[in-house]
Amino acid sequence: MIVVLAGGVGAARFLQGLVQVVPPAEVTVVVNTADDVEVHGLHVSPDVDTVLYHLAGLADEARGWGIRDDTFGALELLGRYGQETWFQLGDRDLATHVYRTLLLRKLSLSAATDRLRQGLGIASRVLPMTDSRVQTYVQTPAGWLPFQEYFVKRHAADDVLGVQFRGAEVAVAARGVCEALAAADGVILAPSNPVVSIGPILALEEIHAALRETRAPRVAISPIVGGATIKGPADRMLRGLGREVSAVGVAEGYHGLIDAFVLDTVDAALAPRVEALGIHAVVTDTIMRGPAEKAALARAALAALRPAPAP
Amino acid sequence: MIVVLAGGVGAARFLQGLVQVVPPAEVTVVVNTADDVEVHGLHVSPDVDTVLYHLAGLADEARGWGIRDDTFGALELLGRYGQETWFQLGDRDLATHVYRTLLLRKLSLSAATDRLRQGLGIASRVLPMTDSRVQTYVQTPAGWLPFQEYFVKRHAADDVLGVQFRGAEVAVAARGVCEALAAADGVILAPSNPVVSIGPILALEEIHAALRETRAPRVAISPIVGGATIKGPADRMLRGLGREVSAVGVAEGYHGLIDAFVLDTVDAALAPRVEALGIHAVVTDTIMRGPAEKAALARAALAALRPAPAP
Repeated sequence: MIVVLAGGVGAARFLQGLVQVVPPAEVTVVVNTADDVEVHGLHVSPDVDTVLYHLAGLADEARGWGIRDDTFGALELLGRYGQETWFQLGDRDLATHVYRTLLLRKLSLSAATDRLRQGLGIASRVLPMTDSRVQTYVQTPAGWLPFQEYFVKRHAADDVLGVQFRGAEVAVAARGVCEALAAADGVILAPSNPVVSIGPILALEEIHAALRETRAPRVAISPIVGGATIKGPADRMLRGLGREVSAVGVAEGYHGLIDAFVLDTVDAALAPRVEALGIHAVVTDTIMRGPAEKAALARAALAALRPAPAP
Repeated sequence: MIVVLAGGVGAARFLQGLVQVVPPAEVTVVVNTADDVEVHGLHVSPDVDTVLYHLAGLADEARGWGIRDDTFGALELLGRYGQETWFQLGDRDLATHVYRTLLLRKLSLSAATDRLRQGLGIASRVLPMTDSRVQTYVQTPAGWLPFQEYFVKRHAADDVLGVQFRGAEVAVAARGVCEALAAADGVILAPSNPVVSIGPILALEEIHAALRETRAPRVAISPIVGGATIKGPADRMLRGLGREVSAVGVAEGYHGLIDAFVLDTVDAALAPRVEALGIHAVVTDTIMRGPAEKAALARAALAALRPAPAP
């Protein structure tokens, strides 16, 4: 079993590659839920949905969120009712949130997620990191903002001065997460935002400990290429938090938690600095333009999990 | 102020006529809520919505429910999740139910309905008959069925042996309903199903008393023309309940509650039997093919509310 710690779109694209080269049923995805948000009274789990939609082949991959060819009739009427519409919800996407919210009356978030997974015909296991409430807040010159307000409403345009995962100190991992990490054949930290996607998962002490202590080999993939992110504000967040904006900066943040680190060929010169952290550096193309590149990156990550042949 | 007791599509079409001939702000609509239903965890008020959508000019008038040119993406995905989809909800329509359900966390149904009304720019007052839970059940050879199951899921195909408005005995009228009836200049019972649309409203003893005791003139419009309904199962329901399937049968049911009764020209021969009940019979064309016929019927109803000139 391969366990992947995942945020949103970067992880989802990587997972599309992984399930090409590993039987999907042998993949367990642990997904960030700290940017979950209630919209119009509905429980939205953006990263979970991005993972589900990509694995189901429904994702609008060009846009990076929501469902392909979705319509926006409901949002239009919600706007007419005076509701804020900056959090764009397509009609099909809305069905997911309606159904999840219904399920959450009686089920945990992880059990509800499993129902969605089944409905979409996804063979991989998808686990929210926690059934507890953890909420990312971003400190900006405008004050502490809930993550979606910073990210969607204000277009991630504010300088980031700090990040909090409120509730993480008391949250417990969802059932199965720590067990999966303990029993894994390999653990992959997806090329997601290390601060606000992988960060909240590792902020759960139970998960941090399980990752630290698993006997499985562990590899992370850098979402920073050539000093910038492919998508999203990870680079500016790292900078704002005083961390090095490079693959090395990412690797440093995972120190003690990973055995190997995949960085892009454009960052090949940084490999010795990663190795100096005691982390095996793997240099390869990490830009996932299409299915072939996704599969190749998955193969490289899997290869990095295998112990090097004895010299 | 004209107060209209209303069910769904028949009432909604009549109201479109009424607001052509009376200032919309001088109309108060009291709407049946006994066929409200929870669908996918959302509170759906079918008759309220039919009234709102028609008054807002959004209704799919050909179909008789929902919003014109609506899409059905959400329903499609809900079906994929294994949810029952016999209760068809368009995407824009879904927005109404999502927003209402959100509002109902803090507001009564009548206050929530008022928000919807405002959002849709409707000047007439729209009052659910009650903020309490009243539920129509229909007795059939297959047993007692919740109304929407009888009406939508089973296409109103079962014989009707009985009807119950569960909860009506303890429900109280929504704030403003009895006051509106007491202060009205005229009360109109719309051409709605007398059994399951107007029936539940009158099953609230407070409303029954307010209608009985108001000093305003009161008129009902027959939804039965030539022994059959224009739309819906009212005729078969009346038959099943052992009532006469005719305009007279409808008028008899309103005995003691109305001063005048509008019946179609095809039923002119029945007028003396209505008069024999002590109810002034008004014969006119009642089929509302388009805006002109709707306005004409509204004018006829308003005329029936005016005391006859002294001989």
